[in-house]
Parts: sequence; C-alpha cells; structure tokens
Amino acid sequence: MRVSQFLTKTLREVPSDAETISHQLMLRAGMIQQLAAGIYSYLPLALRSLRKIETIIREEMDNVGAIEVRMPVLQPIEIWEETGRIDTVGPILFKLEDRRNRSLVLGPTHEEVVTSIAKSFTSSYRDLPRTIYQIQTKFRDEPRPRAGLLRGREFDMKDAYSFDADQEGLDVSYDRMVQAYGNIFKRCGLPTIKVEADSGAIGGKDSHEFIMPAENGEDVVIICSECNYAANVEKAESLPQEFISKELNSIQKIATPEQSTIAQVSSFFATSASQTIKSLIYKVDDALLLVAIRGDLEINEVKLANYLKSSNLRLATSDELEKAALVSGYISPVELGIDIRQIGDHSLVKSSNLIAGANSEGYHFTGINYERDFSLNEITDLAQAAEGHGCPLCKSPLKSVRGIEVGHVFKLGSFYSESLKATYLDQKGEQKPLVMGCYGIGVTRILAAAIEQNHDSSGIIFPPPISPYNVHLVALNTDDQNVLDQSEILYTSLISNGIETLFDDRKESPGVKLKDADLLGIPTRVVISKRTLQSNSVEISNRGKQEPRILELDQALEILRNP
Amino acid sequence: MRVSQFLTKTLREVPSDAETISHQLMLRAGMIQQLAAGIYSYLPLALRSLRKIETIIREEMDNVGAIEVRMPVLQPIEIWEETGRIDTVGPILFKLEDRRNRSLVLGPTHEEVVTSIAKSFTSSYRDLPRTIYQIQTKFRDEPRPRAGLLRGREFDMKDAYSFDADQEGLDVSYDRMVQAYGNIFKRCGLPTIKVEADSGAIGGKDSHEFIMPAENGEDVVIICSECNYAANVEKAESLPQEFISKELNSIQKIATPEQSTIAQVSSFFATSASQTIKSLIYKVDDALLLVAIRGDLEINEVKLANYLKSSNLRLATSDELEKAALVSGYISPVELGIDIRQIGDHSLVKSSNLIAGANSEGYHFTGINYERDFSLNEITDLAQAAEGHGCPLCKSPLKSVRGIEVGHVFKLGSFYSESLKATYLDQKGEQKPLVMGCYGIGVTRILAAAIEQNHDSSGIIFPPPISPYNVHLVALNTDDQNVLDQSEILYTSLISNGIETLFDDRKESPGVKLKDADLLGIPTRVVISKRTLQSNSVEISNRGKQEPRILELDQALEILRNP
Repeated sequence: MRVSQFLTKTLREVPSDAETISHQLMLRAGMIQQLAAGIYSYLPLALRSLRKIETIIREEMDNVGAIEVRMPVLQPIEIWEETGRIDTVGPILFKLEDRRNRSLVLGPTHEEVVTSIAKSFTSSYRDLPRTIYQIQTKFRDEPRPRAGLLRGREFDMKDAYSFDADQEGLDVSYDRMVQAYGNIFKRCGLPTIKVEADSGAIGGKDSHEFIMPAENGEDVVIICSECNYAANVEKAESLPQEFISKELNSIQKIATPEQSTIAQVSSFFATSASQTIKSLIYKVDDALLLVAIRGDLEINEVKLANYLKSSNLRLATSDELEKAALVSGYISPVELGIDIRQIGDHSLVKSSNLIAGANSEGYHFTGINYERDFSLNEITDLAQAAEGHGCPLCKSPLKSVRGIEVGHVFKLGSFYSESLKATYLDQKGEQKPLVMGCYGIGVTRILAAAIEQNHDSSGIIFPPPISPYNVHLVALNTDDQNVLDQSEILYTSLISNGIETLFDDRKESPGVKLKDADLLGIPTRVVISKRTLQSNSVEISNRGKQEPRILELDQALEILRNP
Repeated sequence: MRVSQFLTKTLREVPSDAETISHQLMLRAGMIQQLAAGIYSYLPLALRSLRKIETIIREEMDNVGAIEVRMPVLQPIEIWEETGRIDTVGPILFKLEDRRNRSLVLGPTHEEVVTSIAKSFTSSYRDLPRTIYQIQTKFRDEPRPRAGLLRGREFDMKDAYSFDADQEGLDVSYDRMVQAYGNIFKRCGLPTIKVEADSGAIGGKDSHEFIMPAENGEDVVIICSECNYAANVEKAESLPQEFISKELNSIQKIATPEQSTIAQVSSFFATSASQTIKSLIYKVDDALLLVAIRGDLEINEVKLANYLKSSNLRLATSDELEKAALVSGYISPVELGIDIRQIGDHSLVKSSNLIAGANSEGYHFTGINYERDFSLNEITDLAQAAEGHGCPLCKSPLKSVRGIEVGHVFKLGSFYSESLKATYLDQKGEQKPLVMGCYGIGVTRILAAAIEQNHDSSGIIFPPPISPYNVHLVALNTDDQNVLDQSEILYTSLISNGIETLFDDRKESPGVKLKDADLLGIPTRVVISKRTLQSNSVEISNRGKQEPRILELDQALEILRNP
C-alpha cells in the first residue's frame, strides 16, 4: 500500500487523554480513532494486525477440532434470567428494548446461546465431545472504560465452549485448549505466562489465565524462579518466612498511646512488622468475623471469600465496631472480650513472641504465642503471596510480575447445562447434563498488550507475526527522479513477491518519514535515497535493533524474500 | 470435515414458521438457528459460505483501491441528531442508554462515523479521492423481521463510502464501484441485474440497485427486452400504449348508478380500463390535490412525491372528501367544482374519448378529451411502468421481473459532509465540502438470495464459488471394512490436495445420507459403496444435474483435482 493513497495520519504529540502507552501509540500511529468512551474505529493498520491475530487463533482452534460458528450480538434477556446471570453479571450488561418492548442484551459472552445450540445438536454420548468457537464483537458497559483497546466497551473476542460427557472428557478438552492457547501466543511472538486463576463463584474446578508480562499491566502474578509454579495474586499460595524462637517470652501488657497501625507499633517496639499480629473485623452475611494474620502479610480477600463460601463480605464500619464494644486500632484475638467467629492465617502458628492489640485503648501485649496465649476457631491459608515468599511446590523464592490478561480458560462443569436443561443420553440410556468448559482470548486486547510489551521511546516495535506490514519501504528525496523510479521498481518487486509492503512515497522530508517509520514500528525498514543510490544500494534495518545494512538493490530483494 | 464430528443436524420436515424457501432450506440443512425474531446464529455451513462471499467482496474492494476499516456498532446518538437522520431513519434504530445515561444507537449504516473519519484524515485535495469500506454486523429494528436471513434484525453488510473533491470525481468513484459490484456477483456465480433506483429524499444524483432475479423476490424490476434499460418499479419510466382517435366524440352525461370503480365503469360501458380516467384525491402537506391518470395505469407514488418534493403524502380520507363536497367514486377533473391543484399523467393527453366521473353521484361523462373538455395545472410522468409498456429508450416492450435487492449504490453528494463540516482545501485554497457516494452489499442476504435462486424440491443447489464445501464424500455401507478403508484413503487424499470436503462417515442408512446430500446441495458428490468398490470405483455427480459418472478411484481424484 502506498502511504500517499492510504488512510493514515501520525501525531507527534501524545494525546492528552491517553494514559497508557499502547493507547498513546495507537492514536499517534493512526491505528484507531475514538468515537465514544471505550469505543473505537479500527483503522487499516490496526485492522491488518487484528486480522493476523485472528488468523493465527482460527488456525489453532481448527487444529484442535474446534468448530467455528457465529452467534448473535442481540440476545433475549430471558435466557440471562434463566441462568441467573442477569444478576451476577448485572451492571456491565448493555440492555435495550425493541419496538415491541421486548428486552434484549448485547452479548458480553455467549454461554447461554452456545448451550442452547449444543442442546439442539446433542442427543447422545455419540455426539460428544464438541468444542464450538466464534470470533466476534462483544459489549460490556464498563464502569471506567480506559486504556484504549485494553479495556473497551466494544471489543473483539474469541470465545470457545467445550461440551463433554463427563469430567474426564472436560479435562481432555481443557488441556487441548490450553495447548492451543500456548501455540497462539507463541505464534503471535508474544511471551505469555500461564497462571492458575481463581475459579470464582460459579464453582468450576480449574481455571487458568494467560498473562503477557508488561510493566504497566494491571494484573499481578506470582511465579517461582525455579519450578513451574505460577498463579495470579488472587489465587497464589506461598510459604511466608517462619520466625519461631525456641524460647517463649512471658506475656506483658505495655502502654502504647496512639500507636494503632502495624507501622506505628513495629516502630514503637523497634521491631519488624513480622513480629506483630494484624487483626481485622469483617462483616460476612450480617455476622461479625475476626480475621488475624501476621503483620507483614496482607489478607487475600478472594481466599477469604472462597473459604467462607460467601461473596457477601466487607470490612466492618467504625460504627459497627463501636456497637460491638471493639476498640479500633487495638483489636486482637487475645482477650477479645466478645464471642464472634475468629479465623487466622497459618503465619500466626509459624511465629512466636508476637505483639498484639490488648483490646483496650492505648495498650498492646508482647510475648504473645499461639495456643499458649490465644487460639482461633479456624486456621487456614489467607495470606496474599508476595515476592520473596517461598514457592508452595519447591520452596524457592517467588517473584512478582505485572502483566496483562489476554486469555482465560475455565472448567465450568454443568452449571449452564443444568440451568438450560442441556442433556444427553449416556451409554446406559440415562439423561446427563453436558459438562462444559469455556475459553476466551481478547483479540483487540492482544494487539494493545503487544504494544505495551513491545515499544521504545520512538514508537511501536511490532512482533513480525502480527505486524500490519512486513516491510516499510521509505523513499527519501522523492524530488529525485532516480529515487522515484528505483523505489517504484523495488515496490513492485516486493509486492509481486508477496511481501506485504507499506511504501512511503509521500513528498515529505526525510525527518518526517523516518520518525513515522519509527512510530509505526514495522519490523523491516528499507530506506532508498539519493545517497544510497549512489552505490546502487538500499539501507535495510530492523526496527528496535541497531546497525542498518547497506545492500545492493538485487541483493536486497533476495534478502527480503528469504530473511 | 467429518460429519460425525461436525455440528449439523438436518430436518426432514419444513419448519412451520418459515415462509420463504431459503429460510426453510437453511433451517432444514442446519445452517442457521433462530435465537429471536430476525436474529440467527450462523452455524458452520452458513459461516463457511459467508466467509467465501466476504472474501470475494474484500478482494474486489481491494482491487479498486478501497481501504478497509472497522467502525463501531455502538454510536453516540448525537451524531445522528447532527445529520437529522435520527428522524428520517427513526423507528428502525435500536436505541439504548449506558450506565451514565448517555444515549447510544446500534449502527444500521455508518455515514456519520465514516464522514468523521474522512474529515480527520483529509486536509487538502491531495488527500482525495478515498474510498473506505468495512464488512460488519448491522442492526435494524425491523417492524416485521421475516424470511430468515432475507430481512433480519441483525445482519452482515459490506458498506463502502467514497470521498471526492467534486461531482466528476464522484462519478469516477461510483463507476468503479459499480464495476466491482458486477465482478462480485459474477464471481459468486449469481446472475444479477443492475437497475436504476430512485434516489429518494436525500437528493443524491444517481442510484442503482443490484437485483438477483428470484421467483419470490419482494422487489419488482422493469427491464427492456431489447436494449439495456432496467429500473426498479419505483423509478422506471415507460411508454404506455397510446389510444388517439382522429374523430373526437361529443361529450355526454350518462347515468351510472353504483358504478364507482374503474372495473365497474369499464364493464358498464363494455370497454377497457384504458378508455377511462382514474382520479384520486391526495392530502399533501395539508392541502388537497387531484391526481388523474388513465384507468389502465397505476399512480407511482414515489414519482408523485419526487415531483411534489414532499414526502408528506397520503390519500385523502372519506371524511376529508365529504368535507370538500367531493363525491367519492365519481370524482374527475371534468367540472370538479372546487379550486384545488390538479395534476395528471401524460397518458391523459395521449388518449381520446375517455370516460370520466361527473362529480355527481351516479353519473359519468363519455367522450371526454383533454384540452377540449378539461385541463390540468400540470402534466407529468406519474405512471407506474408495467410489463408490455414501451421502453423509454428504444420503445421495445418492457418486461417485469421479480427479484431480491442484494446491492445498492448511491451518489450522496455533500449532504453528510455539510452537516458534519467535513471539508478540504481545494487547489485555490478554498474550503469545499467532500463529495460522497455510498455503496452497500448485504452479505448474509446474498447467501439467502442465492438459495432462493438456486434450489429444487430436494434442497439447495449451491453455486460452486460460495458453497461451504466443494465435495461431499458420501460413504455408504460403512459397516463394510473395505468401504471404511477406501473412503478414509480418498478423504485424506482430497484434503491433502486442498479440496474442501465434507465427509459423511456416519453410521446412517444410504437413504438418509443421500437425502442429506441433496438437501445440503454441495456441488460435487462422490459416492463410495460396496457396489462401487466391486469395480474399484466411485460415483461422481453434480448436484442439480443428472447422470452420475462411474470413475475408478485413481481417476476420480485426478478429475476432482482438475474439474
């Protein structure tokens, strides 16, 4: 494509309302144009990249025997009521009414629709397994659409759904899809980490996320530096350091006026946070709950909610504490004084001689030891894993990495098939619910995440497999007839050799053209100018790498054909 | 793809709620599944055909230098208010509110969005011309969604928009696109007629439709049997027969009790409808209007509205007639008695000795002649063209053909660019509005229309270029090991030769399999059975044609590779 006939316009300035790098660079490179918050037009450069990503995804889906369909955007609200998702997914659903006042939603995912398709095509175990997928535009009424294509209200996804006769079948379908996902990210040229994820409220068995490491990613994952362990921070287990003394000190009550936070207390006693007990009061389904953990650790509320099997969970308000006669800032499980459920993290057992609030204003206990001085109703794993903790599998130190979630796979089980009565006849002639998995990849998100992961201060550095073009042919000094002629000849040869080429044939200054080439980030750059033609040559360089090579024209084509 | 692992289930019975052939056959072949009125999932067979149609369209768009983008489905309502289309398009727009109560619409077309894109990429005449297109899902809240994919509420379209500096540029872009459309339909294997269309209220210059002839099509087009003239019935001009006598009869007033319709009057006088005058009273922008035409002709209300430059037009009610002292059933321009605007069709001038209502209950005049006995304020072309009329270009008889509109091209002019202030600087440095054309093809509609045009009583007969598969390999007697082995070998060879093959490997009876093959309508069928293998052969036939050929296995592959 000739830039002179293309639809592109680069910006030198960083758009003021774009916070993330990928958003800034995609706007500056003329890849996207915003129509409303979280709603973008995909211009040719973006569309070409998206199509390459789609093609890779489609090929890998087809390779594992997944069957492509396309389901509607518009869905009757009734099917969302049948599965109860109208409440769980709730506010992110775009809802509308048609001219007959029937309520419809814009699909954010398609579990309900695909289950009804599977239902109508499945009578017996002989029709199983099946995996159905689509690549389609999805809609989510995000509370805070932002970061360009990273969190939009209208975006493209590949969503797949597997249907099996039983859990063992699901395990096979799931593993196959995980393998396909690995292939997809590898073929896109995008390093990605597969991590364990929380399987949440629906109660499926396993769940994994695919995270692309990126400095400004909003997800945090915990990975082991030695073994394969990797999990997102909500799910990660870890072995915090242990601090067990052989000698147990005696308990003392010390005046600690106005020392109510962990930081204040550890500073007051000139010790570390790991020598203190952190105690928080939660309100869970109308009851108060004390949760205790060592002061250097954070409570992972996802673990807490899963342990309690309740999603109706929040910290108690100061009013609620006062009403229960609890002294904010000095609460601890030692002499708590009221009878409420108390649970604690393992770390309390693996430490000794701790400092704990005395449940009275301005006093702490020191020399507190579990069992000797206090006990809890339950001890479980409630700690948020963090860098430096031990790996739960091999005890090596864990690392914490920021990244962007680009894929999510999930063993759903039979939640949807039971709600929607999607059953099959097993070998004994008994009706059984289909066993489902679901598998999502954010197509538009991959593009933005790839740019978050691959850029420098001058612009994008496209991974070759998803670059909109392979070669950026930049003709400098286009007022020179020889440059014009030779660049036209080279462009024609590149095209006729099937090399996707963007040809900057504009009458712009060399500075503008080279800056634009840096910004667009196409992997291979070929510069042709009066100077290079003096030696009948062109200059070939790879974006993001140094050292351009000077090659004679004939040689250049050969190198570009067989890089 | 093996049918045993596919997502398909055929129906023998015609679904009761499907009226049109394509809807029935697509449901019966398991190509689509309805989710709500006018909203369908595209299952694998449909999706494969749609993708082939898309590919052809995309290649032809790229060939004429059109640039592909993808614009959002969700559009802020404000841009529709700016162009006033919120009123003209009105009730077919799906509207919704987001969580911040901002109003959005689901795009039925994208003139507003694309104009704002063109605006931001165009500064001077050097940036022109540009044609921008997309292939995308569109939404229309149809009053009566029906006929499956022929008139859905969610459907796929290719919409393109050209931007030029002036009318001459638009003419070139338009002609190029018309040429591309011709190529598209030809490459799809679908005979299509390009016809002149009414350019409607927006007031563009030219407009053409592409109509696929089909028995049950809802559009009517008028074509000349000799020259190239073709127009849809709303737009078509024609030369109705002339009936001019040399001798003019004298006027007589005849009692015609209870003879108020054209049929009654012509029967009463034992003459033809072409000897009578039909007079209708319209209400146009609050004024009454008499419209007269010869009794054998129909008034074309589109022509009438265009002539009057008003879309606010309807027949007067009987109350309104009574109030104006007009005698329903006996109205004519002869001695009308009240002073209202009167216009008539040319046919009144090209006839003589006509019968007209006497504007008094139970009486008609005979021997009525224009100019001698009555005159009208204006005479123009108001007649609906019909089979048998003369061609306006060559006078040969016109034919009337039913069909389905699959494409529409339109010279918009500067309506949108003026509303949205999309301008460019011309060579003299003056701000000028962009001059636009718009061009639509219904992707999903082409598929349905192709089936309307290509089927028989047993099922679909796919045109090869858009068939979901090229070859349907049907293995009969799959309980026979030799059949199993040989069909597997043949299937593998077909696939490895790049021949898209659907392999019916199910354990079903020959009758079921052959009926399914008829229904699915894949162009080439290869039957392999115990019988054919006795001579080491297969049976090859083309769907919709007689005479299967018996070919030896080796030979068969050769023939299928080079058909």
